[in-house]
Amino acid sequence: MSEKRKRRGKRAKSTISWINTPFQQLKNPKPPTEWCSPAELDILHDGSMEILENTGIDFMDPAALALWEKAGAKVDHSAQHVWIDRGLLLELVAKAPSEFTWHARNPAYNIVVGGNNINITPNSGMPYVSDLDNGRRTSTLADFTNFVKLAHSVPLFHMTGGPFCEPQDVRNSLRHLHRNQTMVLNTDRCIRDVAHGPIITTDVIKMMQIVFGKDLPGAVTGGVINVNSPLRFDQRMLGGLMTNAKYGQVSLITPFIMAGAMSPVSIASALAQQNAEALAGIALAQLVKPGSPVIYGGFTQNVDMRSGSPAFGGPEGAWALLVGAQLARRYGVPYRASGSLTNSKTPDAQAAYETMWTMWPAIMAHTNFIAHGVGWLEAGLVASFEKFIIDLENVAMFTHYLKGFKIDRESLVLDEIHNVGSGGHHFGTDHTMANYDNTFYEPVLSDRLGYEPWVANGSEDALVRANKIWKQLLKSHERPALDIAIEEELADFVTRRERELEGIDLYG
Amino acid sequence: MSEKRKRRGKRAKSTISWINTPFQQLKNPKPPTEWCSPAELDILHDGSMEILENTGIDFMDPAALALWEKAGAKVDHSAQHVWIDRGLLLELVAKAPSEFTWHARNPAYNIVVGGNNINITPNSGMPYVSDLDNGRRTSTLADFTNFVKLAHSVPLFHMTGGPFCEPQDVRNSLRHLHRNQTMVLNTDRCIRDVAHGPIITTDVIKMMQIVFGKDLPGAVTGGVINVNSPLRFDQRMLGGLMTNAKYGQVSLITPFIMAGAMSPVSIASALAQQNAEALAGIALAQLVKPGSPVIYGGFTQNVDMRSGSPAFGGPEGAWALLVGAQLARRYGVPYRASGSLTNSKTPDAQAAYETMWTMWPAIMAHTNFIAHGVGWLEAGLVASFEKFIIDLENVAMFTHYLKGFKIDRESLVLDEIHNVGSGGHHFGTDHTMANYDNTFYEPVLSDRLGYEPWVANGSEDALVRANKIWKQLLKSHERPALDIAIEEELADFVTRRERELEGIDLYG
Repeated sequence: MSEKRKRRGKRAKSTISWINTPFQQLKNPKPPTEWCSPAELDILHDGSMEILENTGIDFMDPAALALWEKAGAKVDHSAQHVWIDRGLLLELVAKAPSEFTWHARNPAYNIVVGGNNINITPNSGMPYVSDLDNGRRTSTLADFTNFVKLAHSVPLFHMTGGPFCEPQDVRNSLRHLHRNQTMVLNTDRCIRDVAHGPIITTDVIKMMQIVFGKDLPGAVTGGVINVNSPLRFDQRMLGGLMTNAKYGQVSLITPFIMAGAMSPVSIASALAQQNAEALAGIALAQLVKPGSPVIYGGFTQNVDMRSGSPAFGGPEGAWALLVGAQLARRYGVPYRASGSLTNSKTPDAQAAYETMWTMWPAIMAHTNFIAHGVGWLEAGLVASFEKFIIDLENVAMFTHYLKGFKIDRESLVLDEIHNVGSGGHHFGTDHTMANYDNTFYEPVLSDRLGYEPWVANGSEDALVRANKIWKQLLKSHERPALDIAIEEELADFVTRRERELEGIDLYG
Repeated sequence: MSEKRKRRGKRAKSTISWINTPFQQLKNPKPPTEWCSPAELDILHDGSMEILENTGIDFMDPAALALWEKAGAKVDHSAQHVWIDRGLLLELVAKAPSEFTWHARNPAYNIVVGGNNINITPNSGMPYVSDLDNGRRTSTLADFTNFVKLAHSVPLFHMTGGPFCEPQDVRNSLRHLHRNQTMVLNTDRCIRDVAHGPIITTDVIKMMQIVFGKDLPGAVTGGVINVNSPLRFDQRMLGGLMTNAKYGQVSLITPFIMAGAMSPVSIASALAQQNAEALAGIALAQLVKPGSPVIYGGFTQNVDMRSGSPAFGGPEGAWALLVGAQLARRYGVPYRASGSLTNSKTPDAQAAYETMWTMWPAIMAHTNFIAHGVGWLEAGLVASFEKFIIDLENVAMFTHYLKGFKIDRESLVLDEIHNVGSGGHHFGTDHTMANYDNTFYEPVLSDRLGYEPWVANGSEDALVRANKIWKQLLKSHERPALDIAIEEELADFVTRRERELEGIDLYG
């Protein structure tokens, strides 16, 4: 009994059980859920090859066009357009690694991207943030910093840095400097940023060289390369892709397709187009540097035909996510999809169920890189601190779920069943006392009290409780150790580049 | 364009697209998700056989004990306890039909239970109801009637009758009469009720004989037979089971196991015990009448060790649901699980995500009978009108999801992709105009507007919108035609039985 009290006493130190979950590479031990048949996958593959061969695709950068021409593709320089034969394309795609290590500043937090490894990463790119205290507002560097700290405070994320939200109080062309500096200071786990053109992307890589050494150990950063669908890679994205490939850094090549707007009103058609676009980008990265790490990104949904908005968190997105994973596996490249997608303007029931319509398929599909695993609101325009917590409860539950449970003779504890017999109960048995504390998932946000105690506690709904939890979590953040020389060199770099970029608009 | 306006005009008649969804037998076209290996399933099977052979199980009814004794099981009459050999047990279980038809008053609404058929049914058994206008309160016959009408108003449910909520303004022993009368008057689709002892169950069957004729066409009603876990069938449940079996009506045999309370702290142990209990009940039904329709029910969760409450909507419940389906398939009997389980006290984000933690596994597992598909709050104590709508949006999405989408050459519409080319858009093309209206799921509850129009509409969250929708849906209810002779005979039956049961307490 004193043993028991001691254990309880220990746990009381942190009521947020997430903090005590060990960092681990998450794997889905079960076969992936496959939505379409091999024959259907062939149809999608063939269609996408025909698109690249007959319709072609824009690469709006002379350097990219030159690479394609040299490789033997048909290039129209004035139209910035390329037609790619399947032979050439598949030869290039085959050079991409099927899995790779993404290195963290602390190697204990390295992750493997590919295979049946699942990596869950937080929200990125939101221009607004919201919380219950201050409502919806333009996001700042302080908000960004808080998100880094929140992500770092729980070992459930496989990546604790990324462009969580736009630090809009910093000039556009300087934001990457402050994001990366903030990330390095506040977390020693895997990070990434944007890949917006060669200048920003090179800056990011130079900052990583300060942290990891001039000879990078492999992939240490990367960025999403959105295809400007239909069938166009713009110059900014190509600059990012080619710079990352050159330095062996990661491009998450993600066609941005809303069926009905960027593709025909047909999920099959959207997927064929997605496949053409993603593979074309993957192939270009291999043209720049064979073997450079890439991730096949799926972000195909439909347009809601009444509102004109993207339809996040529904059946169409779930199908596209599952089939996208099958396509990526067909080509032996890691797969990226999303997590917390929703159209809801507030962290209500809609926000929660729409998120589950993406998270469940993402887990079932063995998604190697789940972007936006938490935090979405409002079709990705708002990063919500409360939604971050609501989604994190589900990330924690999926982490527990994927670990599975033991089924062997011993786990049946037939003696216990026999001893308690018919009509009894198992409260307080030795077996229960020895196991109750560490067997089942222990929720942080979910309230399992009865009605009366819940009312006595203030009738708080999930939103109100989430507000308290993120503040508590934020307080628990501790800066990981960092060599003072690195910290100073980073600060010098930021200062120098701020000066050099004065008056220059990299997004002009 | 006038064509288009006409179509839009038509749709404007009902803004609730659910109403226009055709009634259909839902099937999961994909293989079921299997959580455990065949070897692990063997371990669970063997464990459950040992429980029945060595530990045994209570059957607290002399008639049931006599049946077991006659069949050759070892019976202790004074302890009301039975030990069942696996040979006898499996021989009996093999007599249960692997699938059967559940007949509706209107045969167009008959359903098939078993195989890869999924049937979604609404909430049942709640002592309280809640809605945004009147809050949480004791439920009444008027509430019950409203739930019947709501369920009947959308063709997405496979069963539109059941003990939605307790009509507490009617005396306990008379409620079944009023429930069944109300159901027959307000819906012509499949219904069920409780199976609380022989008198109530016989009354229910007699009422069905008035509706379907003395010779019932097969299964037309049924009830949940909860095992009083651990290892006890009480007399009330046995009376219901044996009466239903005698008349060829359905028993949904559902062990009520919260691991840590009714079983050891081990999901494997809980599942072995669940299997022993469910199979013992299935076997007894076959002893009463070989071939009588039964459903293997899974309702295994864990106890939350902090609050002592059942833990609904989490990883443990998801595992148990998936493995329960594998066990039911092993014995070739239909499977029942649940849908909208949650511990939340209000239809918030927690209520929504916990529900998804049961609905996703239920769909993936090919659950043949999803009980409580909508409406749960507060661990099943409250039937919420708003949650009914929130969950119904998800039922509609799963219905759309399971229908799948076409992947063939034609569906790729490569010509469209070619004609729009790079950097264009598909709004307004002939293909888009011809297909935008009927291809994608059209939500009813989910709001996909941008922030400003959402604010202009009153910043309504899902809860507020759900409140409007259930009222609108309720108004759309129309009584299906019913032979006046049947209506009168039912009324006479109710009046007569009310008189006969005066002063008698069937729950005493």
